[in-house]
Amino acid sequence: MASEEVPAKRQKSAKDVPYHLIYWPSLPGRGEHIRLVLEEAGAEYTDTAHIKDGVNEVLAHINGEAPDDGINTPFFAPPILQHGDLVINQTPNILQYLGTRLGLVPDAESDPDGVYRVNGLALTALDGLSNEPHDCHHPIASGLYYEDQKPESKRRSEDYVKVRLPKFLGYFERVLNSKASGDGPWLYGGRLTYADIVLFQCLDGVKYMFSKAMAKLESEGEHPKVFALYDAVKERPRIKAYLESPRRQKYGLGIYRHYDELDIEL
Amino acid sequence: MASEEVPAKRQKSAKDVPYHLIYWPSLPGRGEHIRLVLEEAGAEYTDTAHIKDGVNEVLAHINGEAPDDGINTPFFAPPILQHGDLVINQTPNILQYLGTRLGLVPDAESDPDGVYRVNGLALTALDGLSNEPHDCHHPIASGLYYEDQKPESKRRSEDYVKVRLPKFLGYFERVLNSKASGDGPWLYGGRLTYADIVLFQCLDGVKYMFSKAMAKLESEGEHPKVFALYDAVKERPRIKAYLESPRRQKYGLGIYRHYDELDIEL
Repeated sequence: MASEEVPAKRQKSAKDVPYHLIYWPSLPGRGEHIRLVLEEAGAEYTDTAHIKDGVNEVLAHINGEAPDDGINTPFFAPPILQHGDLVINQTPNILQYLGTRLGLVPDAESDPDGVYRVNGLALTALDGLSNEPHDCHHPIASGLYYEDQKPESKRRSEDYVKVRLPKFLGYFERVLNSKASGDGPWLYGGRLTYADIVLFQCLDGVKYMFSKAMAKLESEGEHPKVFALYDAVKERPRIKAYLESPRRQKYGLGIYRHYDELDIEL
Repeated sequence: MASEEVPAKRQKSAKDVPYHLIYWPSLPGRGEHIRLVLEEAGAEYTDTAHIKDGVNEVLAHINGEAPDDGINTPFFAPPILQHGDLVINQTPNILQYLGTRLGLVPDAESDPDGVYRVNGLALTALDGLSNEPHDCHHPIASGLYYEDQKPESKRRSEDYVKVRLPKFLGYFERVLNSKASGDGPWLYGGRLTYADIVLFQCLDGVKYMFSKAMAKLESEGEHPKVFALYDAVKERPRIKAYLESPRRQKYGLGIYRHYDELDIEL
């Protein structure tokens, strides 16, 4: 009977499809963390950044026209991940969903709570090395242009580079020196998790935005394990191939921006 | 044999103990979301806010002296939750851990991915109605005093009250009007989840900080379902009892602050 076939079919379709990332085209932004996790896992996915008129899909979601399917709530902002019937947003939330499905969290049998430790590390990286850099060029209002808040941006960037950035890098160095990080270059449990991938992408963005301070820290041997983690993620074969592919978009007017006047010397 | 008894004992001790919240004493802050979830569930817990010299425990964690137990990584900032052998931080992370254990997420059998929808809503409430209000009085640097960034705070608060706050409240009204929210006053699936408790606490703080704008919105009938959710959470018997108890601390110099000059008219 048709009425019985529908739910069964739906059940199957719910997970037996590629992941679909809904995010602004033309810049890496917050979507990049999600792309890197999908790439590292070799997962099949589609991405509005590489679909003609993909931006319209983003707009439909933030205007409240989508998802409108009766099972998913509306979203405030992208990135949004669609996977069959499930549609979710919020970068750390999507990362946790993907990390759990794609083997980028601790083993669920031997360390069932490890996923919370990894999630805490990812949230801290996003707070300190993605949200705070964003606010360096938009300290007053995300809806205004950078040009409308330049003196405030300069002041905030000075504080960020001299106070916050070393504090966050020092924190991750402490994590990498803790017993809980285990062997190898990774943050937790001696294995690659999505928190490492998030930290890599954050460091990559901060290197672009605050190039002078980061070059100085690296050349002076400050936070050596943090920079070693960066290199280790960058050399993962699938991530390396992705970074060299046209799928990797250039930084532009997104989270990480390069303005000479904000590229503060340490 | 002793060597076999140890892990078994440890396994038991790991979860058969009260929850322990490690957070700054004397203000609600980010810890308040966690307290409200514990209170709603009637869970047994201890709280450094109400322990003599509890602040030393917070300091030991952010100085890197704790946890130092070989299994948990160091933490950047509180709130921190200890539950037996597990120690985790980051507000949304702790909320998800507690929500899952205390029945404040969707039913795992009938809606296994619902926890991600709830997590997305909680993260959005924390972004827009907790982190952004905090930055209204600290737009330049969290390490400086408010008095050192007053003009910038005024400018940011003007934008927040006129642009961001109505946008976030409008968003949650849309969620409450969506089919996915289900019956009753709740955000998702027709039942109370930790996202509702988070939204309540955020609204409570914003009412304190931006009292004029919130009073106007409420009296003019804007976002009626958002304000109805606020009332519904406040009337939960255990939450009501908690709010009337001495355990509920007064707002002070935390996330939500009342400065007359930032209490912008809408």
